[in-house]
Formats: sequence, structure tokens, C-alpha cells
Amino acid sequence: MRIAVLNGPNLNLLGIREPEIYGTTTLAEIESHLEEVGTELGVTLLFSQFNEEGRMIEAIHNCRGVVAGALVNAGAWTHTSLALRDALTGVSLPFVEVHLSNIHAREPERRHSWLASAALGIVAGFGAESYELALRGLVRALGGAPTGAR
Amino acid sequence: MRIAVLNGPNLNLLGIREPEIYGTTTLAEIESHLEEVGTELGVTLLFSQFNEEGRMIEAIHNCRGVVAGALVNAGAWTHTSLALRDALTGVSLPFVEVHLSNIHAREPERRHSWLASAALGIVAGFGAESYELALRGLVRALGGAPTGAR
Amino acid sequence: MRIAVLNGPNLNLLGIREPEIYGTTTLAEIESHLEEVGTELGVTLLFSQFNEEGRMIEAIHNCRGVVAGALVNAGAWTHTSLALRDALTGVSLPFVEVHLSNIHAREPERRHSWLASAALGIVAGFGAESYELALRGLVRALGGAPTGAR
Amino acid sequence: MRIAVLNGPNLNLLGIREPEIYGTTTLAEIESHLEEVGTELGVTLLFSQFNEEGRMIEAIHNCRGVVAGALVNAGAWTHTSLALRDALTGVSLPFVEVHLSNIHAREPERRHSWLASAALGIVAGFGAESYELALRGLVRALGGAPTGAR
Amino acid sequence: MRIAVLNGPNLNLLGIREPEIYGTTTLAEIESHLEEVGTELGVTLLFSQFNEEGRMIEAIHNCRGVVAGALVNAGAWTHTSLALRDALTGVSLPFVEVHLSNIHAREPERRHSWLASAALGIVAGFGAESYELALRGLVRALGGAPTGAR
Amino acid sequence: MRIAVLNGPNLNLLGIREPEIYGTTTLAEIESHLEEVGTELGVTLLFSQFNEEGRMIEAIHNCRGVVAGALVNAGAWTHTSLALRDALTGVSLPFVEVHLSNIHAREPERRHSWLASAALGIVAGFGAESYELALRGLVRALGGAPTGAR
Amino acid sequence: MRIAVLNGPNLNLLGIREPEIYGTTTLAEIESHLEEVGTELGVTLLFSQFNEEGRMIEAIHNCRGVVAGALVNAGAWTHTSLALRDALTGVSLPFVEVHLSNIHAREPERRHSWLASAALGIVAGFGAESYELALRGLVRALGGAPTGAR
Amino acid sequence: MRIAVLNGPNLNLLGIREPEIYGTTTLAEIESHLEEVGTELGVTLLFSQFNEEGRMIEAIHNCRGVVAGALVNAGAWTHTSLALRDALTGVSLPFVEVHLSNIHAREPERRHSWLASAALGIVAGFGAESYELALRGLVRALGGAPTGAR
Amino acid sequence: MRIAVLNGPNLNLLGIREPEIYGTTTLAEIESHLEEVGTELGVTLLFSQFNEEGRMIEAIHNCRGVVAGALVNAGAWTHTSLALRDALTGVSLPFVEVHLSNIHAREPERRHSWLASAALGIVAGFGAESYELALRGLVRALGGAPTGAR
Amino acid sequence: MRIAVLNGPNLNLLGIREPEIYGTTTLAEIESHLEEVGTELGVTLLFSQFNEEGRMIEAIHNCRGVVAGALVNAGAWTHTSLALRDALTGVSLPFVEVHLSNIHAREPERRHSWLASAALGIVAGFGAESYELALRGLVRALGGAPTGAR
Amino acid sequence: MRIAVLNGPNLNLLGIREPEIYGTTTLAEIESHLEEVGTELGVTLLFSQFNEEGRMIEAIHNCRGVVAGALVNAGAWTHTSLALRDALTGVSLPFVEVHLSNIHAREPERRHSWLASAALGIVAGFGAESYELALRGLVRALGGAPTGAR
Amino acid sequence: MRIAVLNGPNLNLLGIREPEIYGTTTLAEIESHLEEVGTELGVTLLFSQFNEEGRMIEAIHNCRGVVAGALVNAGAWTHTSLALRDALTGVSLPFVEVHLSNIHAREPERRHSWLASAALGIVAGFGAESYELALRGLVRALGGAPTGAR
Repeated sequence: MRIAVLNGPNLNLLGIREPEIYGTTTLAEIESHLEEVGTELGVTLLFSQFNEEGRMIEAIHNCRGVVAGALVNAGAWTHTSLALRDALTGVSLPFVEVHLSNIHAREPERRHSWLASAALGIVAGFGAESYELALRGLVRALGGAPTGAR
Repeated sequence: MRIAVLNGPNLNLLGIREPEIYGTTTLAEIESHLEEVGTELGVTLLFSQFNEEGRMIEAIHNCRGVVAGALVNAGAWTHTSLALRDALTGVSLPFVEVHLSNIHAREPERRHSWLASAALGIVAGFGAESYELALRGLVRALGGAPTGAR
Repeated sequence: MRIAVLNGPNLNLLGIREPEIYGTTTLAEIESHLEEVGTELGVTLLFSQFNEEGRMIEAIHNCRGVVAGALVNAGAWTHTSLALRDALTGVSLPFVEVHLSNIHAREPERRHSWLASAALGIVAGFGAESYELALRGLVRALGGAPTGAR
Repeated sequence: MRIAVLNGPNLNLLGIREPEIYGTTTLAEIESHLEEVGTELGVTLLFSQFNEEGRMIEAIHNCRGVVAGALVNAGAWTHTSLALRDALTGVSLPFVEVHLSNIHAREPERRHSWLASAALGIVAGFGAESYELALRGLVRALGGAPTGAR
Repeated sequence: MRIAVLNGPNLNLLGIREPEIYGTTTLAEIESHLEEVGTELGVTLLFSQFNEEGRMIEAIHNCRGVVAGALVNAGAWTHTSLALRDALTGVSLPFVEVHLSNIHAREPERRHSWLASAALGIVAGFGAESYELALRGLVRALGGAPTGAR
Repeated sequence: MRIAVLNGPNLNLLGIREPEIYGTTTLAEIESHLEEVGTELGVTLLFSQFNEEGRMIEAIHNCRGVVAGALVNAGAWTHTSLALRDALTGVSLPFVEVHLSNIHAREPERRHSWLASAALGIVAGFGAESYELALRGLVRALGGAPTGAR
Repeated sequence: MRIAVLNGPNLNLLGIREPEIYGTTTLAEIESHLEEVGTELGVTLLFSQFNEEGRMIEAIHNCRGVVAGALVNAGAWTHTSLALRDALTGVSLPFVEVHLSNIHAREPERRHSWLASAALGIVAGFGAESYELALRGLVRALGGAPTGAR
Repeated sequence: MRIAVLNGPNLNLLGIREPEIYGTTTLAEIESHLEEVGTELGVTLLFSQFNEEGRMIEAIHNCRGVVAGALVNAGAWTHTSLALRDALTGVSLPFVEVHLSNIHAREPERRHSWLASAALGIVAGFGAESYELALRGLVRALGGAPTGAR
Repeated sequence: MRIAVLNGPNLNLLGIREPEIYGTTTLAEIESHLEEVGTELGVTLLFSQFNEEGRMIEAIHNCRGVVAGALVNAGAWTHTSLALRDALTGVSLPFVEVHLSNIHAREPERRHSWLASAALGIVAGFGAESYELALRGLVRALGGAPTGAR
Repeated sequence: MRIAVLNGPNLNLLGIREPEIYGTTTLAEIESHLEEVGTELGVTLLFSQFNEEGRMIEAIHNCRGVVAGALVNAGAWTHTSLALRDALTGVSLPFVEVHLSNIHAREPERRHSWLASAALGIVAGFGAESYELALRGLVRALGGAPTGAR
Repeated sequence: MRIAVLNGPNLNLLGIREPEIYGTTTLAEIESHLEEVGTELGVTLLFSQFNEEGRMIEAIHNCRGVVAGALVNAGAWTHTSLALRDALTGVSLPFVEVHLSNIHAREPERRHSWLASAALGIVAGFGAESYELALRGLVRALGGAPTGAR
Repeated sequence: MRIAVLNGPNLNLLGIREPEIYGTTTLAEIESHLEEVGTELGVTLLFSQFNEEGRMIEAIHNCRGVVAGALVNAGAWTHTSLALRDALTGVSLPFVEVHLSNIHAREPERRHSWLASAALGIVAGFGAESYELALRGLVRALGGAPTGAR
């Protein structure tokens, strides 16, 4: 089973960007840790990060028939892009919406997500751990390995 | 480490209540499964479910000095009760907001949470699995066992 | 056929409370009159009044498998409680929303009902008569006796 | 005692029009059944249906000094016509607002009624039975026969 | 110079209708008084009152090339009819919006006028005198007799 | 195949009315041109124009079983009449919403259409050509002649 | 009978200020013409114009027991000053709200008047004539001379 | 004269709860100080605190005929409970709304009070002193001892 | 210790102005009574009332280094003047917002205060007593005499 | 005459993407059919589809001096991109807004178009036919071939 | 060339007032620095500061024919005064809106400016430098000296 | 000191695009003029213009450690892109928001800026001069050369 891990704009800055909100872990470190979890769960992870919406849309299109599901952290586009949701529903991709920070405890403009209504589930606020939890939840929902290894 | 698992109104109906939304797993089954996960993680879980807001408020008060954190699924009160948030912040209880369903894909009145701004993190939409993911995330955030056992 | 007659907060004050709005008939008098109507219609009525939301939620839960339908006058909770609607839909209870006063001719905060979207029907503004009309409508809708005896 | 039964636009389509919402009973059948109820209650009913707002306004004007009260199902005009309310208050006509469907469980534009604030009472959601209940309630409120015959 | 005096729905009830708001003068009395003022000002008045919007629209159409301007008291349609404004602008008819009562001191739904943005001027709150003032203002604006006779 | 072409208020003024917005073509000229297109497409057109909402409602009712679909330009009622939409859905009439002007480039009150949610399609902004395009689209959608003759 | 004519900010600029909206008549010319009308009506006029809200408030206070009523053109304060309305109601001064331009055909911020709900009547849109019409209306309402001299 | 001092949810936490907002004085200390003030003013105080809305509603009911007035600090319910206001108006209890903090300087959701429109007066922002001021104001309003002893 | 007592527009009318809302006590009587309370509390009071916002702003500026705090009843400016709040925060003046009437039980435009977010506390609804309570609260907050003399 | 046919994000998925909304025709098939229509009308069509907003903006820039007009189906960007409208007005490109589905009968977020106020006309709801109708309307508006060939 | 530098309420407090927002430079220092810049640019500056709106309005009136343009920092009146904008447009005064702080990064009530729609340009957020930049921009726009001396 | 000058979508059209709003100066001319000013101020300018949001985001990322600050004219993205603000705050880049036109005097959708709350300052409405003023302000704020050369 393959799972895409799709990150939106500015997430390449993780570790540098507003560390009091986003922590000091870099995206590479998150991906490296997720890879271990993926191995444990028996799934292959395909990582990508996008600062151009168009490339993220096309990456979602390319998920069709290739991956079983996706983790999506669309960053600021979460709150402004209907085109990303259309891409996700357009290829019927089961996905979990992931956020490092608790978006509901921040500025009002971060409280509404255009993606959420199409998501299988949402995990937010656990920092870099949000990804691992989301991955475990997604794999379980797709009928894969249990949430926690046993 | 002790963790409270606090459920709000109508969650005693799980398994019966609108199964197309909430699934057929009962609350007892969720608790029994969580207990296993708790054992794995080395934490003791204290379960409760409330149809009276006042009792849930007092249970939160009683968490003070007794538990390290809580999973809170406040059901419909998520969207209407400021008093619950005041109780949680009043005793400085770290908590994860949990929902079985993806509240953002339902009626508009379920999209706003009075609790979320005070939560450590949020997990929603994984059905009964939401609890396990939330527990793993909470324990990790509190400095306990890893999200997935290794 | 059994029918529950569930009243919400402050309705125990009927006869005393703002009589220019709610009239001078007491709840006991309403119930006594309804009992006669119930006898006429061949249905047994189960009366209750709640000032605690939690008890009303549990009374609704207990309706499951016991009564065929309910009259619900949730008083002020009509306008603030999503948990009551969840309880009613959670046990799939057919119910009629009842109000003594015409809530649309009062303060703006009484014009929106959280329950109405789940109700079978609504009767408001006839004072104590609202209950009788609602009962006749409910029994007819449930396939029982005709609205007016013949 | 004479009572007017005033129906607004498109209600002549009853039986044909969206039967999953409005049922299959025709307006003629409703009127014929109401006539029986009227006989039972000792009131004479004057039926009319209007697709032109102006004629309904004038029919309301003509109620002055002729009928004791009215059942008003203004259909879509419920939500758009202030002129009808002005007509009703202009001749001080006691009336009950009637709806076949539960307007609060439909599209948002059907949730607000321009008439309700001037109505004596409201009955909605019982299909064709709404008329009978409303008639019984109106006659009782006007001091006529009891809600249910005895 | 000919001037149309166009009245909307329910204004035929003047004298009867809510006299505490609209006074006890009938429309016939207003028209008779206006006729005298018209004679003084050297203008011919054409009176009409409509309970059907369609007839008022057509009366406005018929004003084209026939009258120099109009007094328009559209009653409740003031607040709901865009079609009347389209009729008035469609035939480029200079008109004064007239109201017996001060619509800004009444219910919120009477505070917005669909006609006002197309009107030459507005006179409201002087009871039956509003018409005379509006007529004097209109005639003066159209280059006719002075506001007050001299 | 018969198609109704239903026009709302003030459209009889076409050619005269605000020509900078609506052009100088009269309704008769539009109808005459449409007739030619209808002949080309093999459909019979039934034209009507209404300044009274009630007559337009009844004309829609009369379409039942008589025409296969309709072009509807409801003029100002587009923005204020729910009764027209109820009429159209009440007889299940497939229709195309037509506007001469681009209603989205005009006053805010012309941006919302009560009819659009029930329409098969919408054509706006092409002046008198909007009707021809709408007719071709409707006939094609109903399974008739191709959009352009070949 | 004495009548105050109270003008608000920037009205001293009349004749200069945006003549395409306010015309070229100066305030002195308006006052001079009004004086003639006052003579005709047998009332004495007291003119003032204020660019400081505080002085206008105090002028209103000083009206108490001195004048029978007032014409009030509060200019931009119409839309922002609650203190002026409090002054007017505080001394129970009957007044007519006057505007040179049709405020409903201008920017949205000029459509709401803080004064209107306390006014006896409103006259707007007749340019300098608005004052004369308002004066005639006020004097008539106060039981003085007829609207038009006869 | 007896006065009830009714406290809502979480106020039992005073001294512990967010001391930077609510101070370090406990509710027992407030009550003990108020008792002294009561003695000075010659009134008997009846203290209670509620985490269950239903019990607070019933305590208000029980005030009827027993106390002359009440101090009400409804905590978070101030902003969410219409049922409490109905209870207070239902037994016609004169009451002062009390808040420790200045609710207008906090989160937006604390700026609206459901109770305030029925209150005799409001005192907020003086910390524990708010109660004493409110008590003095209430006793004076009820015709009791002077605000300050003399 | 010196305390300023700053009153806004129209408060010079007290005793005359809408006595059913504001009572019959004059401002001079309130000041005279407050002076006695000031003597009791050992504070000197500096009274002023303003109908010009600019003078009130400057009076607030002049408080700097001269008074320890202020009572502010800004009347209608409470709801419209941001400049007054800027003046108060600009000189860091601790102040209590005072209202004679319960502003939350009046027109909607009186429910929002531009000052409240900067106030130390708020006292409203006790008529002339509001000032005394506010003074006692302010003096206590500033570390002066006790709320009630002992 | 050259016409650009510009498609926005996800439209490359046509045929696959939510076929119950968008149909099963692919974009290639639409383009191929349009080409035939173009031949018939004597216009050359330039097709493109964009998942990156920037490329679509630049394609619009490149239309300047090259094409006479454009069909624009901006997909989800219709509802979120002001930059596209700026591009279209920046090069003064006459364009028709095209939608496959009736965007007014879908989610609320699809009801507002940022482009519409700058469009020449709008065609929506005819599925793949929308393009042909729009092309015929555009060519006619630009003075080219007739809407239907003759 | 003469330029007016008009400052609104509380700006006389500069240097004292909330220095973390407004800095420690006094208004006199700003004016003294501006004078040097004026000399450099060859323009004469006329400084004034107002705590009374009426005086600022009259100062604007007096600019007519005397100055070529103005810098306007209306302080809090920026957000509440329509009369100031009317004064500025009434004398057709070209002006630049100036703010010391970035008003868009502060409280929501400071984000809307009543003046901005009439301004030539806006400079905000540079502290005392905002004035110099605004002056350079204004002089350049009026055809005077270059922005930077060369 | 290096300063980036970052321009958003459609600004490459300057000189062509809606010259009545944006003027006839091209972006190259603006840059060339700015270069001179930069030389005068002793700063090196790095120019770029983006029609793809992703490239602008990455250019902002690349500013980190390379430039001391930026001028940002994000064009239409000002009003729609949260991702750009995240990029700017993510690399802690001090920037001035620049607009050629006075965005507050245009369409409502151009009045809100997503960037402004993170900007150091704002300059708008001076046409091509806005850039020079912004540059002088930025350099001064960063501790560089004086606003005007001396």
C-alpha cells in the first residue's frame, strides 16, 4: 500500500518558520520519522511539498490509481483553495487533513478549512506528531495495519 | 500516568444512534479497546460519560491533581457550552478534543467548537479510532510513551 | 399506544410565570386535560417536566422502545440546546414541537428552534390548547385515532 | 360562525406538486374533509385559493365583518409578502398560519415567515392534517366548539 | 400638466386600517383634498390604487407620455418589489416616494425602500399631509407652480 | 416539441426601457427571430409576457403536459419571487433562465436569483441573443435538434 | 409660533460644496426664502448652522420652551450622532428631518439615519425646496397654518 | 430582608482558576466578607453556587416569596443560557448581574449577556468587590439601607 | 486623592430628560450627594459635564498627574466615540464606566460601548446610585477607603 | 477571427471527475466538437487548460492582439481568483464565462464568481454544450457568424 | 505652495500616549522636522491639531483657496467621522491620509477609514516618518518638488 | 544593504493595463527610476515580478539572509493570498505594502489586505511614486539613509 504525504506552501520552512508555533523539527526530519512508521505499518510513503498550487493539484491527479490515500497539510491554502478540494474529490482520493498547530486557537482566518468537508478525518495541534497520528488513522481506515503496532 | 476519557451527551447511545454517522461500535467497546491501548502505553484510563453538563463540569474539576490530561468528546456541547471550556481552563487540564465523525462535513452548527481554542490538539472523523489516535497523541505530548509502540 | 409529554425548563411555573404570555392554566391542569383527550384517543400519556437538561436527555433515551412518539415543549432550550435534538434523533423518536406562545411574535432569540428541523410537526401559539392539537396531530400521524373524535 | 380558508400560490397543484413533500391529497379533498370537520364544529367554511397576491389581499379585505377568523396557508408568499400581513392586520383578522410541510426542515429561505408575527398560532408539518388541527385550534381560540368533539 | 397619484396595496383600507398608525382620513378624502391643491397648482391629478402589483406596473407603463410625474405610495411593496422600481425607471417617470407614517420609526423591515434610490424625493411621516407636500415638491421640481401659492 | 417562452414584468417595455442596458430590440422582434430559430430546430414556440405574477404562475401550471420545456426571463421577479420557483418545480418543468443583461455586473440586488437553483441552465448577458442561445441549449438538452444546424 | 431651523456640519458651504449634488443655492438664500414662507405662515424662524456637534446639542437644549418645533438637517451627523437624537428627545422637540439630496440614492453610509426614528416626518431630495416643504409640514402638524396658503 | 447570592458554573474554583483574571480570593472569602456587609445593611444573605443549570433554575424558583432580590453571577451561562433568564423573569425576581472581570475587555463571546436585559443593574470588573457594590446597589434599589453606611 | 467625575452630552438635562428612563434627580443633586460620599471616603471630587466632545477629550488630558482616577458617563458618546477611549488610554487614566440606565435593556445601538474595553469596571442601571457605587468601587480599586464605611 | 478557449484547474479530469456532476465527455472530446463548430463559424480556436493560475494569467496576457475574445471556464478559481479577473480586464479581453454545471444549484461557495462582473456573458448548466453555446454567443457578439448556421 | 498639516484628537499627547504604539517623538518635534523638509521642497507648512471636530471642519473650510493640499491624520475620527470627509470633499482639497501606526495591524475598529475613499493617497506605519513620506508624495502629486531632493 | 522589490500578478502589464487607474508608466520605468533612488540611498535593489504565486513565495523564502527588507506590491493576491503572508512572516522579512492606486477608493473586494497586518507600513495611491516613498520609508525604518537626501 502506497500513501502520499502532500505538503503545501511554506512547509519547506519548517524548523525556521515561527518556531514558537510550528516547532523546530524540519520537514526532512518529519519525513524521515514517518518513513520508519511507514515501514512498521507496511506502507510505502511518497513525500512532496509544494509552493505552487498547480503542482500540488497535478500531484493529486497523479495519485489516481497509484496511492491508496494521502495525508494533506495544505498550509495556508487550507483556508483559500477550492481548487485543491476539487482535485481531491476529482480523483476520489481518501485523505486525512493534517495541521501542525491547532488552527482553531489562532487567527480567525485559519478557522475555516475548504478541504475539511471532503476529508476522511482531521488531526491538528500535535506538532510533528500530527503526521504520525494521521498516518496511523489513515492506514487503519483503509484497512491496513492497526493504529498502534502490537 | 492517569488520563481521563470524558464523554458528553448522547454518547451512551453509541452503536444505536444514527449508525450511518457514528458507526455500530458501543462506548463500552471503545473503552475496552482503549484500555488495551492504555496498558500498552503504560497509562491508566478513567472513563466517564455525562448527559448532565454539571456533572461533566465537576468531573473536570476533580481531574485537578489527579490526571495528567484528558480526552474530551463533548458531543453537542462542543458547539454550545462555554462553561465546559471554562472548567477545562479553570483547572489547566491539557486535553485533546475528539470526535467520531468529521464535524466539518456535517450541519453548519457542528462546525464551530467552543472547546477547540483551549485544546492541545484535535482528532476527528476516524470513528471509534479517533479515541485511540487522540490518546496516543496526548500521551506523547505529555511526555509519555511513543505514538506507536516500538 | 404510549405517548411521552416532555416539558423543559420553567414550565413547572405555568400559571405563575408571565401570565400575560403563558396564561393562568397550570401544567397539572394541562396534563389532566390531556389525559382525558388521551383516553378519548386510546393512548396512554407519560408526563414529565425537567429543569435539568441531562434528565430530559435521559428521559428521551428511555423513550426508546417504550413510547410511539412524544410531544416536546423544550421551553428556552428550544433555542439553545443541540444536545436535545441529538437525543431525539439518537433514538429516532417521532415528536411534535409544542409552544404555548407564538414564538415568532416574541424576542428575536426565540425565533430559531434547534429542534424544529427534526420534528414531525410544530404547533405554537394556542396556549394550553397547543398540547391537545399537537397530541391529536401526532396520534393521527402515527396511524392512531382521528384528529377529532367521530 | 364563518371561517375563511385562504390558500396561496401553487396550492391548486396539491396532489401533483412534489408529492414527496406535499403528499398526494388534492386541495379539493382537503376542503371536503374540512367541511365535515366544520359541520362537526358548527362553523361554515369559505374556501379560496389564489395565485395572484392582489386577489388574496382583496379576499382578506372582504373578510372584514364577514368571517370570525381565517386559516392562512400563503405558500411561498409566507416568505416574501409583507403586503399580505398588512392586509391581515389592516382588517384585524384573527388567523392561524398553516403549512403542510415542516418549513423549518427545508431550505433556509422557507424558515422565516412574514406572517407569523401577526398570527394567533401556527400549525406546520402534519400534511393535510395541518388544516384540521389549525381549524380546531382557531375555533377554540375564538370561543367556539372544543378542539376535539366530545 | 398631469400628475399620477399611485397607491399600493391596502391603502384602500385607509381610515379603517390601524388608525393609530395611519390616521382616520380615508383615501377618498385625501384624493379630494389633493384635487383642490391640484387646482390651486394648475395640475390635473389622476388617482389610482392597486392591490395587484401587475396592475400598478401597467399603470406606471401607461404614464409614459401621459403624465409629467407621479406620487408613489407603494405601501408594503416599497419594501419588497423590485419590479415596481424597474417599471418606474423603465418609463423614466420622475416620482416622489410618499408615506403616511414615518417608516424609519417602525419595524426594521419597513426601513429599506427598493424605490427610494430611483425617486426624485421622499416625504414621510406627515399622515395625509405627506401627499400634499409631495405634490407641491414634485410640481416645483418639474418646473410648475410654486410650493406654496403666492 | 413545444417550448414556452415566458417573460416577466416590464419586458413589454423592451426597446424603450433603459436601452443602454437592454438594447433597442423589442420583445416582438425577439419573438419573431426566435420563431425562425424554432422552425429551424423543429420546435413550436409559445410566447407570453406577464406583469402580474399570478398570471405567470398559472401560465407555468398550464405548461404541464403541453410543453417540453421553457425559457424563463422573470425580470425583477428573478430576485424576489419564490412562488415562481415553486410553480416551476411544482409542474417539474425543465427550464433555462435567460437574462438580456449580465446580472452579475449590475446592482447587488440583481446578483441573487431565486430561480437559478431549479434551472437546467442559465444564459445571461448576450442581449436579445440570450434567448436564441438558451433555446438551442434547451432543445439540445431535451434531446431535440443540435445547437447549431448542420 | 417660533420654529428653529438647525443645520449641521458643512452646510455653510452650500453653493460651493459639490454643486452637482447640493445645488448652487447658498444657505443664506435658503434662509431668506424660508423667511418669506415663515411670514406667509405666520411663524418666526430662528436660523443656525453648526460645525461643532456640542453647539448644536446646546442649541437644541435651548429650544426648550422657546420654539414649537424644528427643522433639522444634521448633514453627516445624521449618520453618526446618537447624541443629537438624545438631545432632541431629551427636550421633547417635535422636528422634521430635512435633506437636500435623496440620501437613499447615494453612498450606503448615508442610508441610515440615527435621527429618523425620533422625527415627526422626513423630507429629502428636493434640494433647497426640501426646507420649505418641511416647514409647511411641520407647521401644519403643530396645528398652525395650512400647508399651502389659501 | 433576605437576598440570594447565586453563583454559576466554575465559581467554586475561585482562587485557583485563572488567577490573573479572577484574582486569588476564594468564593468562601467573598461570601464571608459579604456576610459582614449584609449585617451592616441589615439583610440576611443566602449563598449558593451551581455547576448544574437545572439546580440554579430551581434555586431561582425557590426564591419566590422567600427573598427580596438576588445577586446573580451566572459565569459562562451568562452568555449561553436563556433558561436562566426565563427562570428569573418567571418568578419576577429583581436581580443585579455581577461579574468579577470586565467581560467587555475579554473574548468576544463574553460580551453578550442573555441576562442583562432583565437585570435591574450590572456591576462588573471590580473583582471580588463587584459583589459588595452590587449588594449595596440592590439593597438601596429595594428600599433598604443606604449604599454606604452613615 | 482626587477623582474626576466626567459626564457627557445631554446629562445636563437630567431631571428633565425622559424621566421614565433617567429619573427626576438632577445632575447637581447627584454631584451634591457624591460630594458627601467623597468626604466620607476622603477623596476630593472634580465635577464636569460636556456637550462638546473636544472639551471632554481635553478635560481627560488634563487629568494626567492631577487625579487618581475617574468616573465616566459618556452618554451617547459611549456608543460612538473612539476618540474618548483614545484620550483615556492616552493618559493611562483608571476609570469606571457609569450609566444611569441599564443600557443592555434598551435600544440595540446602546448595547455596545467603545469605552468598556478600557474601563477598570462598569456600573449600570441603578439610576443616580450608579455614581455612588462606581465611586466606592473606584476608590477601593485605587487602594483608598473601603467600599462601605465601617 | 481567433478565439481562445481557456480552461482552469481540474478540467483535464473531465470524464473521470465526479461524472454525476460533470458528465462523461472528456475535454479532448469537447475541444474536438468545438473545433467543428469553429470551422462552421469561420473562427480558429486556441485551446488550453491550466492547473497553475500563473500560466493561465500569462496565457490571458498573451491573448492581447492575438485573439478577438475568449471562452473562460476557470473552474474553482472562478470563486477565488481576483488575479484572473485583473488579467482579463488588464488586456481588455472580451470573454464569456462558461460552466458545465449550474453553479447556482451547488454548494454556496460556488455561487459567487469573481469573474462575472467583467464578463460579456455567462452560460452555465448545459454540460459540454455550454461551450458551444458560449462560442456561438461570443462570435455573434464580436460581430462574427450567426448563432446558428443558416 | 502652502500645505496644511491637520492633526486630529489626542495627537497633542504624542510622546506620552502609548509610546509602544506611537513612539516617543512629540508633535512639536514632528512639525519642526517637517518644516525642514518643507524648506527643502520649497513649500510652506501650516500646522494645526484639533480635539474638537468642529474646529477641524472649519480649518478644512479655511483651506479653500489658501493651501494647495493637506496632510490629514484624523486619529480616532478616521474611523468615526463622515463630517470630516464631507468637509474635505466640500472644498475639493487634495489630501494624503497619514497614520503613525499600521492601523491594519491593530484593533478591528481601526481598520476602516471614512476618509480613505476621498484621499489622494495613504501612508501608514512609519511612525513620525509617515508625515515626511506623505508630504513628499503630496508635493510630487501636486506637481511640486521631487519626492527626494536631487 | 539590499532590498527586494517584489511585484505580484499582472503588474507586468503596467502602462497597458487600465491606464486610467494604473497610469502609463511601465514597470521597467518604475524599476529604472527606483534604481536611481537606490543609488542615492546607498542600497542595492533586486527586482522581480510574478504571475505565479508559488514563485513569489519562493522568492520571499530566498530573501532570507540576503536582503534587509522588501517592497511588496502583491496586486490582486493582496486580497486573496494568505500563503504570501505566511511566507513573509515565515522568513521574518520586514516589508512595506505598496499600491499604485488607492485601494480604499475602489471595489469593496480591494479594501481588505491579507498582508497588511504583517507589514511594517503601507503606501498607496501615489501611482508609480508609491514605490519611491515606500523605499525611502523602508530604508529609514531599517536604519539606512534619510527619507529625503540632504
